[in-house]
Amino acid sequence: MTPSPEPIQGRPEPSTGEPWRDSSSTPSAVVPRRTARDIRSDSRLDVLHAVLSAGETTRNALAQSTGLSLATVVTVVGELLAEGIIEERKVTAGRIGRPTAMLGMNKARGLVVGMDVAETYVRAVMFDAALNEILSFESARDEHVLDPDSVVEGIGRTLDQLLEKAGVSRADVLGVGIALPGIIQGPQGVSVIVPHWTWQTVELEHLRERIGLPLVIENPLKSIATAELWLGRGRSYSSLATINLGTGVGAGIVLEGRILRGATNTAGEWGHTLLVLDGRRCRCGRHGCVEAYIGAPGIQQTLREIAPQHPLADLDMQNDFILALAAVADGPEPDPAVLETIDRTAYYLGSALADLVAVVNPEVVTLTGWTTWAIGEHLLAATRKHLLEQSPAGSTRGVELVVSTVRGNSVATGIATVVLERFLVDAGLLTSNIPVAL
Amino acid sequence: MTPSPEPIQGRPEPSTGEPWRDSSSTPSAVVPRRTARDIRSDSRLDVLHAVLSAGETTRNALAQSTGLSLATVVTVVGELLAEGIIEERKVTAGRIGRPTAMLGMNKARGLVVGMDVAETYVRAVMFDAALNEILSFESARDEHVLDPDSVVEGIGRTLDQLLEKAGVSRADVLGVGIALPGIIQGPQGVSVIVPHWTWQTVELEHLRERIGLPLVIENPLKSIATAELWLGRGRSYSSLATINLGTGVGAGIVLEGRILRGATNTAGEWGHTLLVLDGRRCRCGRHGCVEAYIGAPGIQQTLREIAPQHPLADLDMQNDFILALAAVADGPEPDPAVLETIDRTAYYLGSALADLVAVVNPEVVTLTGWTTWAIGEHLLAATRKHLLEQSPAGSTRGVELVVSTVRGNSVATGIATVVLERFLVDAGLLTSNIPVAL
Repeated sequence: MTPSPEPIQGRPEPSTGEPWRDSSSTPSAVVPRRTARDIRSDSRLDVLHAVLSAGETTRNALAQSTGLSLATVVTVVGELLAEGIIEERKVTAGRIGRPTAMLGMNKARGLVVGMDVAETYVRAVMFDAALNEILSFESARDEHVLDPDSVVEGIGRTLDQLLEKAGVSRADVLGVGIALPGIIQGPQGVSVIVPHWTWQTVELEHLRERIGLPLVIENPLKSIATAELWLGRGRSYSSLATINLGTGVGAGIVLEGRILRGATNTAGEWGHTLLVLDGRRCRCGRHGCVEAYIGAPGIQQTLREIAPQHPLADLDMQNDFILALAAVADGPEPDPAVLETIDRTAYYLGSALADLVAVVNPEVVTLTGWTTWAIGEHLLAATRKHLLEQSPAGSTRGVELVVSTVRGNSVATGIATVVLERFLVDAGLLTSNIPVAL
Repeated sequence: MTPSPEPIQGRPEPSTGEPWRDSSSTPSAVVPRRTARDIRSDSRLDVLHAVLSAGETTRNALAQSTGLSLATVVTVVGELLAEGIIEERKVTAGRIGRPTAMLGMNKARGLVVGMDVAETYVRAVMFDAALNEILSFESARDEHVLDPDSVVEGIGRTLDQLLEKAGVSRADVLGVGIALPGIIQGPQGVSVIVPHWTWQTVELEHLRERIGLPLVIENPLKSIATAELWLGRGRSYSSLATINLGTGVGAGIVLEGRILRGATNTAGEWGHTLLVLDGRRCRCGRHGCVEAYIGAPGIQQTLREIAPQHPLADLDMQNDFILALAAVADGPEPDPAVLETIDRTAYYLGSALADLVAVVNPEVVTLTGWTTWAIGEHLLAATRKHLLEQSPAGSTRGVELVVSTVRGNSVATGIATVVLERFLVDAGLLTSNIPVAL
């Protein structure tokens, strides 16, 4: 009944006295007031989202899909054309008649790079300005080397290698986005806290120098939320949660069309909510977290509990384990221990999703991440059933549970999207009221 | 390891086939586009909040506290004065000099009534137009009588008795607000689902006729969120969670100054998130819900587990039990079983709050409800400690846990506030983009 006496690793300021005390002397900033300028900015962002989503579209179709007046669309399209963000192509439908002006993203506007910095790897993905993936490169990271200089150098070298492989120079790149866990955006500015790592504070200036390009930093949960919002279900739903299943697990949350960041940018840490009070020890230091059951190592732990002697129980690498699990599940021979592992994982996942649905009541929940790509389809039906059974009445009405349509590394895709947003802010087209990380 | 086979009572449409299926034919409404008119509406609401919060204030002070320009404040104040919502009083500070124009709510504008319809009681509270409580009246409800006609009649009779006791007629009342659990606001309109009750659908027209006054309906979690937003910590924080502790428990959530409703208005059902997978059976049908541990009956269950023979373990009425627990805790003789019950409750509460903080990352968490008034101060220090220990790194930075300053029945206060908002919408001062329930 007593909680873990160990503090959570990576906790900021563990001994600041009484941060909980009611102190009226430190009220936070009020909500920024929205202005007519913000509304213009929103219109530009909406048009851009719509062009990006549609691939090719017309001004009339944009007016329809965004709800903006045609006059506003015409103005905004003019601005985006002038900046070279979108381009116009004349298309003649049929053999005679006036050509139709089709609009699309201007792929040639430049390249953007999204980087997913994880415990065991750094993945860098290059996109064109329409967010089509061009090239991807991954470096292994030694998870025991955590001094900031080595981390920064590892990130920089991975970027260099990607550019070299693509045969492009820094001048061709509009900007770079790096997803790092645990960014704090407080009144005092930005600091980067990486939980589970001893590396707690990123030397931002050092990183910026090493990258040598316009840089944005965001956390992985906000990155997947951005990807889902721009490129996935966010195109037809205004509230959603997208669940990253991998080594760690977490939720990117979109409410009323906006990403939920929270007071210190740490919203969505659903992987560190309780599934079982005083249950399995989580790597965060807490006991019983969702992640300890449905993170890749947690799934392996479930198999070990069911069949300690099972050959898959001893696999050393998480990724190998998940792929092997998928291969057995896909195979012709039913393996009862594997089937039970998948069943229990679906029960854990469905139960934990019911908690998330109870609190934020989204319209749709999507699954993403490498565990999803491997075994998502095996988990889906049973997870839905448990989610339905366990959610409070009303909150499940119409809610959907689906695999995300944003494939590949959605962390990298999401942060690349933020780079594009940031570029538009720097070009003066968007107000900085829209949170775009650094 | 298997979940409860029983369906949750009160679940709507339990057999609609596959409501989970990905169906692109039913995308929800897009986020309503905000217009300049909405910005004017926001300004009016902000000024009104500021006047209500301040009690007495000036145009200059309003400009400062709202962040609006003085010119806008002057315009908005003029509109609110014209509608008789606020009033101006000339005050001469000192013996000479120009009198200062002080602004305050116009208490005489009319009365509003807020009603908290719970399992075992209906409480009706009358407020003046400045939301000062004037009179309160409570009827017992037989929790076994659940046919809609009897429920509607019980609500209507309680209102009649309140008006009679106050010696006022319906003509003196601007509107009535009724808090009922589980309101669904979907594209098909509004329906009211009362979980845990067999009474699933309120005959809205019937209720409206019986009340005979402008009516708003909202759920209790949205009501306490509204009260905290207007009258509590919402005055200095833009994101908060307010926790109702009583028979049931739940969270009212405010993000970026707006109440989190969710897709079907059921956000905040944190009481029905898991504390212990497969744990104590909750009255919602699920096993291991937070409510089963920190709802008043859950706290009594904890005492029973610690000391089955304890005299308080057998008390029949929840309210008597909580008050007796408080009396013993306040008393001179330490009672180890009672102290351990409070300790464990704080552990359960702190652990469950850590989950909420992990997901929504608010700036402040407040406690409200009758259990809070009785034993909140005994729970506070230990709960803070557990919350701090168990929240993900970063999310606790600066977060506060405090007892709400909105005292009394905050459900009734909150819904009365919604009545006032609705009145302003009807008067054409606010846009209906601001969700104001029915």
